[in-house]
Amino acid sequence: MKTAAVASPDVAEFALRMGDTCLILGHRNAEWCGHAPALEEDIALANTALDLIGQTQLWLGLTAEAEGKGRTADDLAYLRDSSGYRNLLMVEQPNGDFGRTVMRQFLFDAWHLPMLKALAGSKDRRIAEIAEKASKEVTYHLERSSDLVVRLGDGNGESHARMQAALDFLWPYTGEMFLSDAVDEALALAGIAPAPGSLRPAWNEKVARTLADATLKAPESSYAQKGGRSGVHSEHLGLILAEMQFLQRAYPGANW
Amino acid sequence: MKTAAVASPDVAEFALRMGDTCLILGHRNAEWCGHAPALEEDIALANTALDLIGQTQLWLGLTAEAEGKGRTADDLAYLRDSSGYRNLLMVEQPNGDFGRTVMRQFLFDAWHLPMLKALAGSKDRRIAEIAEKASKEVTYHLERSSDLVVRLGDGNGESHARMQAALDFLWPYTGEMFLSDAVDEALALAGIAPAPGSLRPAWNEKVARTLADATLKAPESSYAQKGGRSGVHSEHLGLILAEMQFLQRAYPGANW
Repeated sequence: MKTAAVASPDVAEFALRMGDTCLILGHRNAEWCGHAPALEEDIALANTALDLIGQTQLWLGLTAEAEGKGRTADDLAYLRDSSGYRNLLMVEQPNGDFGRTVMRQFLFDAWHLPMLKALAGSKDRRIAEIAEKASKEVTYHLERSSDLVVRLGDGNGESHARMQAALDFLWPYTGEMFLSDAVDEALALAGIAPAPGSLRPAWNEKVARTLADATLKAPESSYAQKGGRSGVHSEHLGLILAEMQFLQRAYPGANW
Repeated sequence: MKTAAVASPDVAEFALRMGDTCLILGHRNAEWCGHAPALEEDIALANTALDLIGQTQLWLGLTAEAEGKGRTADDLAYLRDSSGYRNLLMVEQPNGDFGRTVMRQFLFDAWHLPMLKALAGSKDRRIAEIAEKASKEVTYHLERSSDLVVRLGDGNGESHARMQAALDFLWPYTGEMFLSDAVDEALALAGIAPAPGSLRPAWNEKVARTLADATLKAPESSYAQKGGRSGVHSEHLGLILAEMQFLQRAYPGANW
């Protein structure tokens, strides 16, 4: 039975948002390769990056299929300019120090896991399968990032101060994860994806508990940066894409 | 009368080296736009960048003409990959702090001005004209950069330490300016361009005098990084090109 009530473009758009967010966060984490403060962390960041880029292939592959324009996942990744990207603004922000990278990963994972768990029950079988696969990886991401947030937040004076500064910097970017538009509403109504706001309680609870263990304090402001879904990005995304897309732009259609 | 003894490819290559060095240093200086520590310095850096990019147009224009392959200066700037670039390695190094940017500019200007003065007497009229025009701008660049090196080197403890660190970092990149290969030798023999080594005494003298005024000490090592002329660059150049060439790569042939 087809879910005729939901237009394919909505599924394509949703998968694009998921895929772009995974791609850009994966790219940011990959920037640490060879530069992390300890070998174990270097490898862990690279593995997280690989997981996210693997998930990107699945999500953008679904977009390509659902939009039916003959584009591939690679075309979507390498041949769109920043205004065509739909990632959360948080993931395109510069890595900053290791603490900020860890904090961003945690704030994202704490949203990503409940999102995937909800998507595993999607009425769109393709979405459910991607979410099922990804949630195994992301369960581990969240374990790791929440553990590091606690160890560094409740570490020494320097690490505590850095984690608090990271939290203060990133906080205004967290609200965007729970914003809703017409696409989200249509998908929620059809049982394809959860309403973004429905993920808020689980996120709030996990974040509050982890920050308490880490002796960190969430900012009180509820101001939320937004724009990722409409292609209004910070200047950082353009610089990421310039680097990420260079090869395909300079050598169109290159294969090896 | 034609200078039949010098092949056009040698002139094209020489102009390419000059143009690429001006382009990449201009790009590096332009990165400071809006970020310099004082408004006057911000404007001065942007003006220096504009001068250098103006000179780039002349040099790469000459390359395009001398090679006769139908490429334009823009093609050369925007459609070559890093292995095709012939700039000095010094100018592609990251800006570092303001002190390092100033020190690099000084070490370069102290070579650039005597080079241009010698080129003003070139038997190739096109080269002589470019050099004549550029040397007026570069006279001012050197005045400004040497003045700043003295003020910061002979400033306070912090500024002195930063300038010394900048000098220590950049020193191994200065030797490349005086290296010579078959192209240089052919051009020197034909009176088209000075032998690179012939610029050494003027540079040594200017640098020694300025560093003495600045209470800075040149490293004793004479180790010289090299590779720019053969297209063997540091990873930094690829990142510069990815950003610099994005527009032309993503929108080939775009005009406005």
